[in-house]
Amino acid sequence: MNNLDKVKKIVIEKPLKLDCGKTISNFPLAYETYGKLNEKKDNAILAFHALTGDQFVTGINPITNKNGWWSYLVGPDKPVDTNKFFVICANVIGGCIGSYGPNTIDPITKKKLATNFPVITINDMVNAQINLIDFFKIDKLFSVMGGSMGGMQVLQFVANFPNRTKTAIPIACTASHSAQNIALNELGRQAIMADVNWNKGDYLNSECSPDKGLSVARMAAHITYLSKKGLQEKFGRKLQERDDLKFSFDADFQIESYLRHQGSVFVDRFDANSYLYITRAMDYFDLVKQYNGNLSNAFKESKAKFFIISFTSDWLYPTSENKEIVIALNAAGANVGFIEINSDKGHDSFLLDVPEFLKSIKNFLDANYKIL
Amino acid sequence: MNNLDKVKKIVIEKPLKLDCGKTISNFPLAYETYGKLNEKKDNAILAFHALTGDQFVTGINPITNKNGWWSYLVGPDKPVDTNKFFVICANVIGGCIGSYGPNTIDPITKKKLATNFPVITINDMVNAQINLIDFFKIDKLFSVMGGSMGGMQVLQFVANFPNRTKTAIPIACTASHSAQNIALNELGRQAIMADVNWNKGDYLNSECSPDKGLSVARMAAHITYLSKKGLQEKFGRKLQERDDLKFSFDADFQIESYLRHQGSVFVDRFDANSYLYITRAMDYFDLVKQYNGNLSNAFKESKAKFFIISFTSDWLYPTSENKEIVIALNAAGANVGFIEINSDKGHDSFLLDVPEFLKSIKNFLDANYKIL
Repeated sequence: MNNLDKVKKIVIEKPLKLDCGKTISNFPLAYETYGKLNEKKDNAILAFHALTGDQFVTGINPITNKNGWWSYLVGPDKPVDTNKFFVICANVIGGCIGSYGPNTIDPITKKKLATNFPVITINDMVNAQINLIDFFKIDKLFSVMGGSMGGMQVLQFVANFPNRTKTAIPIACTASHSAQNIALNELGRQAIMADVNWNKGDYLNSECSPDKGLSVARMAAHITYLSKKGLQEKFGRKLQERDDLKFSFDADFQIESYLRHQGSVFVDRFDANSYLYITRAMDYFDLVKQYNGNLSNAFKESKAKFFIISFTSDWLYPTSENKEIVIALNAAGANVGFIEINSDKGHDSFLLDVPEFLKSIKNFLDANYKIL
Repeated sequence: MNNLDKVKKIVIEKPLKLDCGKTISNFPLAYETYGKLNEKKDNAILAFHALTGDQFVTGINPITNKNGWWSYLVGPDKPVDTNKFFVICANVIGGCIGSYGPNTIDPITKKKLATNFPVITINDMVNAQINLIDFFKIDKLFSVMGGSMGGMQVLQFVANFPNRTKTAIPIACTASHSAQNIALNELGRQAIMADVNWNKGDYLNSECSPDKGLSVARMAAHITYLSKKGLQEKFGRKLQERDDLKFSFDADFQIESYLRHQGSVFVDRFDANSYLYITRAMDYFDLVKQYNGNLSNAFKESKAKFFIISFTSDWLYPTSENKEIVIALNAAGANVGFIEINSDKGHDSFLLDVPEFLKSIKNFLDANYKIL
């Protein structure tokens, strides 16, 4: 993770009271934009990234030199057409690509904050990002959109700032993190903390970082992003560059080799402490509880038009949990559309080339941009 | 794991050629029995244990001082009534409760075999255990039964020894380990190997064993044994002995505390190298491939009566995979019954107090014991 000095960022001077009770100010928020903000400032879309995403939505990510995470969806002539829309994305606070997070240098000790960084929430993330919208002097976004943890931010954004967006597209998410999802995140955290190099968060640099633990955490998460059927179709029991089993603990099967690769490339682009903090924020997310058990109250102030999307094979944030959001929106009298997309690609579908998904978003945006 | 000297075992002198090519002989097989073998020797049931099980099927396990893993099912006046049946269970080779495994002392080096232990298969496990049936001079078992990896052993047993059992009960299993299941096992192995104490398998004793890695592996596996719905109903977002979130990485949620507990108690009773070897054996299991792509050929020599059981909420070995066994048995002209049991308890259902499951087994055994 070099080149971090070059990422765009604003410093947010205005104090922000975090859910943990602490107040922060003068903190950096790194961001990227695509397309041009028009004169009426009515063509802006705020995209929220997921757990391991970042501000580099599309084009070549300058940190990884790979395509941005939403390259299928966002870009010139893409479904979210940056010839038309101005897309903004910020690295969440807690992240590791330039925003205020565990890698931020403490001005007093001159060391990384590490686990002195406060435990933050989805609410804190969204409250930090509204400053970016103010920075661009955008009164009302055309849309807020995001999948997975990005979808949670969409829901929280609308609840906190009901008049700051015309439309909202939460994708493959939930209004309240389930026990299974907490369990899976805890597994990842324990894998990181089990690494002798984690050292209670106080690893000084990438030479002694808890790469093995972070890699195991990533492997665990990666399995949950794919469907059983998708894995079977893509990998099945295919062997890795060999004709028969080797009777060893090498990667006999392609799926093993694939997972190990996913783990090893991840540690080059992500920070273990950020992984701890961001998963914690997801686990703490419970919009139902925030609104005293009545989710529809979260949406009753908003006039936004909603479009909820889920995927058939997503077992991490299944259709049933997305439908609970639809039900609450309906109970709030909101304008809401919902589609469950057929896909074998599991939770990852929102990041992949799933034509029905891409087309649905394009149609929703284009139709509403004409009339709203 | 003390008291291992006291467990019952036979030493198998007869050479056994393993699938890896190596031949072993004079190796220990630890076992336990319940009930009495009758004079006709027609009341014996061979139970096969799952990944982390052992030979202590019921009553108090002398190693853990807890109830045996199949205490709901097996015992006096239980569904598998040991007043009537003679139940035998062996610790699988590769295991750590007395049978030939990575903890076996190499007679030459006087050190544990550790990763010098050969990679074994389900086929090897079953071929080792037939010696125990010979030891008891049992010509034909009344039944072979087991869940999960125990079920795989049931299938392999019938394929290898078609005339050695009258009935067969594979529960919650598969004929061919899926990509997702390989992935989940690989995750566990990588967690163990990531532990600095694993030391390429050469940890000398329990003071420097890879407990953290093994604990993470157990947590990962444990999540897969339970259903999303079961977890939600049992834990939901309940907090652990606190009124509100603590904004730390302590176990805020009960599910976190529960998982950590599952991990920590597991390392007291299980060996990390055994975990590697046994998961490898499961991943290598592919009875379809063994019979050149036609699973029904595995069963065509057997006259056994089969009873296949799956559970609605088992996503690890779902009903669809159990049905593939039923289809193959039908294609082989076998006598086969099948039931899918309604349960929210996930894969673990076969170990738990699930009345419909327990009753089904009792009815199957009792009805057939009269007539076969």
